[in-house]
Amino acid sequence: MDEYIYETGTVPTGFLKLENGKSLHETCLSYELCGRKDGPVILVCHALTGSHLSVGTEENRGWWRGLIGPSAHIDTSKYLVVTFNVLGGCDGSTGPASLNPETGEAYRTSFPDVTVRDIVHAQYKALKVLGISSLEAVIGGSLGGMQALEWGLLYPALMRKVFLLAGTPYFSDYGIAFNMIGKTAITSDPHWQNGHYERAEEISGLKVARMAGMVTYRSPELFEKRFHRSKADNGLFQVESYLAYQGEKLAKRFDPNSYLYLMEAMNSHDIGRGRGGWREAVLEFQPELISLAYRGDLIYPPSVISEFAGLVPNSSFYEVDTLFGHDGFLTEFEKWGNFIRQHLES
Amino acid sequence: MDEYIYETGTVPTGFLKLENGKSLHETCLSYELCGRKDGPVILVCHALTGSHLSVGTEENRGWWRGLIGPSAHIDTSKYLVVTFNVLGGCDGSTGPASLNPETGEAYRTSFPDVTVRDIVHAQYKALKVLGISSLEAVIGGSLGGMQALEWGLLYPALMRKVFLLAGTPYFSDYGIAFNMIGKTAITSDPHWQNGHYERAEEISGLKVARMAGMVTYRSPELFEKRFHRSKADNGLFQVESYLAYQGEKLAKRFDPNSYLYLMEAMNSHDIGRGRGGWREAVLEFQPELISLAYRGDLIYPPSVISEFAGLVPNSSFYEVDTLFGHDGFLTEFEKWGNFIRQHLES
Repeated sequence: MDEYIYETGTVPTGFLKLENGKSLHETCLSYELCGRKDGPVILVCHALTGSHLSVGTEENRGWWRGLIGPSAHIDTSKYLVVTFNVLGGCDGSTGPASLNPETGEAYRTSFPDVTVRDIVHAQYKALKVLGISSLEAVIGGSLGGMQALEWGLLYPALMRKVFLLAGTPYFSDYGIAFNMIGKTAITSDPHWQNGHYERAEEISGLKVARMAGMVTYRSPELFEKRFHRSKADNGLFQVESYLAYQGEKLAKRFDPNSYLYLMEAMNSHDIGRGRGGWREAVLEFQPELISLAYRGDLIYPPSVISEFAGLVPNSSFYEVDTLFGHDGFLTEFEKWGNFIRQHLES
Repeated sequence: MDEYIYETGTVPTGFLKLENGKSLHETCLSYELCGRKDGPVILVCHALTGSHLSVGTEENRGWWRGLIGPSAHIDTSKYLVVTFNVLGGCDGSTGPASLNPETGEAYRTSFPDVTVRDIVHAQYKALKVLGISSLEAVIGGSLGGMQALEWGLLYPALMRKVFLLAGTPYFSDYGIAFNMIGKTAITSDPHWQNGHYERAEEISGLKVARMAGMVTYRSPELFEKRFHRSKADNGLFQVESYLAYQGEKLAKRFDPNSYLYLMEAMNSHDIGRGRGGWREAVLEFQPELISLAYRGDLIYPPSVISEFAGLVPNSSFYEVDTLFGHDGFLTEFEKWGNFIRQHLES
């Protein structure tokens, strides 16, 4: 039997030339490797506040644990699953909180803007360093789905299949609008100090930004079903306590500058940029594309994903019936995990 | 011919006992009267950031000018239209920025919580002072629609018809969630100073709150159609500039404490409170109810309004086909103004 590995670490990705012409020196990405050491490789791409820990451990469960695992829908007894923390992130990869080797100080807001394509380029370099030269599939949801799409366009020869979950070919104005709430909340917070804050957790703007995200992650029906206007002991509505808690929780673990840079990366997402528009770009999509949309997803509506999927040459589309909306891709694996499994096995 | 009047002013509403047991002394409401002096009276109720100036003047156009006017859908050559600024507001009515007669200082956060029912009670007193003892109709959208519903339940003998536009029998958890974004943004802004700010326009939190409102007022499709990911000269996406502009504009004219109190009034809205739940309350609704819902309204979905309207004994329901979503009730009068006109004339 082949060796089963679980490993996390950091891989040097060196010099990176970015899409906007700027460059970064001495970069690195943190990664997680999990599964059959010599199995076909599946690359997992994470969403805005995710990390390279998609599988994690029993004590520190990853964000896709259960979807991925031994005998799970993405079966680690067959496949080797690799996940990177994105460039610009704050979980070990080079980002605004990293030291700029040229100054010896943290980049903060001097970090250059990164796009989804830059994020993918960095991962491509990281795969090479890890000795991985072909992929069975790339899979991601939300910002991770944007990466999966760009993978399919930038390095089509490298993978057989692309799984796009809760993602669209371009980020909509409506999505940019929600990000603008968060962006304004963070950058107008006096504690932010133009990015030179001392204590990130003081920045209430990040909590507000998180709340503006949360209302797009789950459907109105689910909010209704879960809270039904009930109040907590402190007089707040339960839904208010819930949002306050989620805001606090994120503010304790996430770098506000990273949040800003990753929102800009999302805003920049348009597979049609420099390719004659998305309707042209889509015709160049070579790998097999499997798209999953989640009913009630406010920012990534099934109708948009369905129209897009219909234009990709080799493509399947599924709409998952759920009360969760966008967060459907992070939950209820029993509803849609089999679509992944079947397409991996086909 | 009867006299046509246009008049604005302030009417004393004296002592008000509030729903929570607290009271306010020496209150007043600002009002606008417009139309045929001896005509049947139509009471207009305004939404969160509206005012008593629903008709206004040529120079300073009211928020419903065009819907209301001589020969318009609400015809001021036939009717006398009266609009009050809500209790808790900041356009001349008693609110958090008013002087507390007991202390000689502005109430600010010592202002008591007010509910939609308190707002209606104050208007009832104001009508009496103005010598108005019966109403042909009460009409309002959004927070104004909540008031219209409470009018129909609190003073059913006073009016013949209630027009509910873009409003629901209770404010949803999802609506409370969006308000929570705004509430957190304002109250965590150091400039807010626990309500004792010196310069309201410094409070960025109000701009953020406004943005969190804006994304619920118009449909994703309209955002898309209007902005299509285009950028302004300053490098911002047009949709970002638009939201920034709307935020600035509101911050210049609206009192942040008022905004907080009126959001709480919205949050408190539930016609079923103390009446055995909304499904019980609805059976007691005596006036004729005419409900208009707007396609794509995120917080006040047509499906909820339709279900509610179906339970009211004497009721009509219309769904307006629009790209605007919630803001449909403030625009495209040609699409739905006739429903109002026909029901007023019937």
